[in-house]
Amino acid sequence: MSEMKELRDIFTEYMRLNYISALLGWDQQVNMMGYKNVAGRSEQIALITKLIHKRLVSEKTGKIIKKAEKLNDLNDIDAAMLREAKRAYDQEIKLPEELVVEIQKTAALAQQTWQKARKNNDFKSFIPLLEKTVELQREKAQKLETHPDLYSTLIDLYEPGATYDWIANIFNPIKPKLINFVKKLNSASNKPDDSILNKEYDPDKQYELSYEILNKLNYDFEQGRQDRSTHPFTTSLGSLDVRITTRTTEPFPACITGTIHECGHALYEMGIMKDLHDTILCTGTSMGIHESQSRMWENVVGRSKEFWMYWYPTFQKYFPENLKDYPMEEFHRAINYVHPSFIRVEADEVTYGLHIILRFEIEKDLIDGNIQVKDLPEIWNSNFEELLGIIPPNDTEGVLQDVHWGSGYIGYFPTYFLGNLYCAQIYNKALEKMPNLSDDYKKGEFSNLLNYLRENIHQYGSIYRANDLIQRVSGEDLNSAYFMEYLEKKYYPIYGL
Amino acid sequence: MSEMKELRDIFTEYMRLNYISALLGWDQQVNMMGYKNVAGRSEQIALITKLIHKRLVSEKTGKIIKKAEKLNDLNDIDAAMLREAKRAYDQEIKLPEELVVEIQKTAALAQQTWQKARKNNDFKSFIPLLEKTVELQREKAQKLETHPDLYSTLIDLYEPGATYDWIANIFNPIKPKLINFVKKLNSASNKPDDSILNKEYDPDKQYELSYEILNKLNYDFEQGRQDRSTHPFTTSLGSLDVRITTRTTEPFPACITGTIHECGHALYEMGIMKDLHDTILCTGTSMGIHESQSRMWENVVGRSKEFWMYWYPTFQKYFPENLKDYPMEEFHRAINYVHPSFIRVEADEVTYGLHIILRFEIEKDLIDGNIQVKDLPEIWNSNFEELLGIIPPNDTEGVLQDVHWGSGYIGYFPTYFLGNLYCAQIYNKALEKMPNLSDDYKKGEFSNLLNYLRENIHQYGSIYRANDLIQRVSGEDLNSAYFMEYLEKKYYPIYGL
Repeated sequence: MSEMKELRDIFTEYMRLNYISALLGWDQQVNMMGYKNVAGRSEQIALITKLIHKRLVSEKTGKIIKKAEKLNDLNDIDAAMLREAKRAYDQEIKLPEELVVEIQKTAALAQQTWQKARKNNDFKSFIPLLEKTVELQREKAQKLETHPDLYSTLIDLYEPGATYDWIANIFNPIKPKLINFVKKLNSASNKPDDSILNKEYDPDKQYELSYEILNKLNYDFEQGRQDRSTHPFTTSLGSLDVRITTRTTEPFPACITGTIHECGHALYEMGIMKDLHDTILCTGTSMGIHESQSRMWENVVGRSKEFWMYWYPTFQKYFPENLKDYPMEEFHRAINYVHPSFIRVEADEVTYGLHIILRFEIEKDLIDGNIQVKDLPEIWNSNFEELLGIIPPNDTEGVLQDVHWGSGYIGYFPTYFLGNLYCAQIYNKALEKMPNLSDDYKKGEFSNLLNYLRENIHQYGSIYRANDLIQRVSGEDLNSAYFMEYLEKKYYPIYGL
Repeated sequence: MSEMKELRDIFTEYMRLNYISALLGWDQQVNMMGYKNVAGRSEQIALITKLIHKRLVSEKTGKIIKKAEKLNDLNDIDAAMLREAKRAYDQEIKLPEELVVEIQKTAALAQQTWQKARKNNDFKSFIPLLEKTVELQREKAQKLETHPDLYSTLIDLYEPGATYDWIANIFNPIKPKLINFVKKLNSASNKPDDSILNKEYDPDKQYELSYEILNKLNYDFEQGRQDRSTHPFTTSLGSLDVRITTRTTEPFPACITGTIHECGHALYEMGIMKDLHDTILCTGTSMGIHESQSRMWENVVGRSKEFWMYWYPTFQKYFPENLKDYPMEEFHRAINYVHPSFIRVEADEVTYGLHIILRFEIEKDLIDGNIQVKDLPEIWNSNFEELLGIIPPNDTEGVLQDVHWGSGYIGYFPTYFLGNLYCAQIYNKALEKMPNLSDDYKKGEFSNLLNYLRENIHQYGSIYRANDLIQRVSGEDLNSAYFMEYLEKKYYPIYGL
């Protein structure tokens, strides 16, 4: 099995180069705010990217993979290692360098243009570069050819194994259910009042609190850090170095829920078994499963009544001017206020899925050439009304709101909602085993849930693809019924229904 | 001249890899304090080191250098670029890989052993690894063969162009002068009292103050940062990214003087002309010249009476409990108290040179095989008494105090004292041009000195070797008379002599 050893070594170097690249990115976002010149850093990142590419497409790598493919009786880890190695190799070797460079250049330009366009509510100025982006992504999908249809090939980049049809079969039936559910909540006579969240909360105190919560959630500060950045993110700079960032933006408590979200991502990466460290399997298996972990901690735990039964007195001590005489139950209802809104990243967990379904359907049509970039604002607004019952007042709060398309990420959006669905199904299983799990939260105790997730999800890293993993955990395929059940159980009491 | 273009490109990549390596090191020292596992980071650094080596020793690099050496009429920049490229190439190509690995391994072990030995005052336990280190450094010098004698070859690694003889000719005559000067100050009837510095000063306030001073000294926070670390240092992570670190250790005001010291290093790197950015010349030309800059800001400016005429009121506001009723003149005398002491890094600027001469002479004898490692404590103590009139009470405060030898840095020490000498000679020239320079400091104005240094030193990066540079600045070779003159002018008034 010397082939497997060689393969492992090549991809250990590949992982280390990726960790170095991640450090260059982390440092730029955390430590270089206000720097005069980031061109030098961009050159450094480009150099590392080139070295990663070179390492990957070497003749040696191709030969080893071919040899390893002839091996029989690989164990789960070796089989997965070969699968992921081949996947990484194919992605690099199938794409001509000119195409890769063109995609990078276009993304750099498109991002700048998008930023201005969003600021000035000027979709027209973004059209040429978005058209080019779509064309380049089509070309990329044609070269990769992972699936017969182009959009599935793009989806597969973020959710390995998933296809358009598979996702559509899940999203289509849940769509009307969500629409009706939102309508039902909206018709309730006693809706939550979230005005308490619009008061002023000292940003430094918010940050301090977020640190306290991270500790309680078992984020390990001996193999990670928390820092501030403009956009919160989680990044692994090593198998034992998983860092998160926090921002203190309005409305309250976005800083807290955002931190818990990133903590969920980090706990996943921190929980990967030692045998996988520094191998290509030492990372979450898909964006959807990753998102299931971040959302479980953010929404299922972090917005539960039991969580706030423990934390609210602390929050009252930090912000007596706002919360001293404000009842916990009302605060809990405020942070679970469901209502159609324009901006995806500010949406509640019920309407969120509809924001994603909108994008999923548009992306499919864009890639298939059924709709034109120039018609996007109209399509966006009309579909938005159909799904959420409101029409964005402008493109800034509509089709121009997300960074993804300008960066060339087409096929990424559906993984966010898949995350919610995976989350509900996994949590349902955890509850079967520990029916009184949420009693833990009242005591500020979160390790039983974490241990369950480590045992069933985290430790495996990328050994099992998302669909295998959910089968192993729950004994069935992804099933959106658990999500609807979760929503009903949670929101009917909050809305007095 | 396409050879020069190719050469420039190869070494731009080399510099970028070095910047990346510097980031890995900076991050480890600033952000990974208390991390469980730094092994992963060490592997990343080893990988980058390997890539740098590979880039450097490629056949292509050797060929280009040979071609470029045949070119005539190179301008100053191209000639220097070729010189430094060849120097870097030779250092990598002349050393067999086994030797490099052996040196690295030995240094890792020796450092650990040294730390324990110093802690336990147990020189014996350090002997075998120090012997091996000396042997490996001798072997390294034999392979490099930059100069006929081994010690000069080692010195040349840190102070390009300098030799043992050249330095000995400078150090030997100043040695008795320094000894006498210290004796003279010690015999004064009205010596400074430094007990005020042993009071408690809030570390956070010290850090805040150090930041305020950095701003006034024109450290550019748009192309650098200040952070905390266990040992203060300056590092370039890019031509426009020069970071410093600060620690708040006792005695006061070590945090402040240490920060000003690192600021001096940083201002040098920040002042290099744009044409040299991202080239192999974009760094200080030698350790001695670098140290001349850090010490000029730390000692000549930062311990001058005029500097404190401006800053003392601020310090009084920060630390009223200690300084409110304490006269500035006495404070200034306290921070310029000259007295023989055991620890080099805590020594005043007068006795400091004697600490260095001690090490310089011992290193020479060690490398030449004239003395044995096992006899070092005895030699250290007896020479120490000769130079400073006191005997270290133990090896922890004697021969075991420095990290350098255990890390394989033999030949580095003399550059520290050369820094003091270069500094005095350069500052003397600045005073010739601007006789009232120190009046600036009374007003918190430091840009005239900085502009002088930028024009005469900083902008050139590594174009001119130290001896050429000092000739260009002052019209003569390094001359220790300026340093003695500086000391007398400064210390006689302080000591009322």
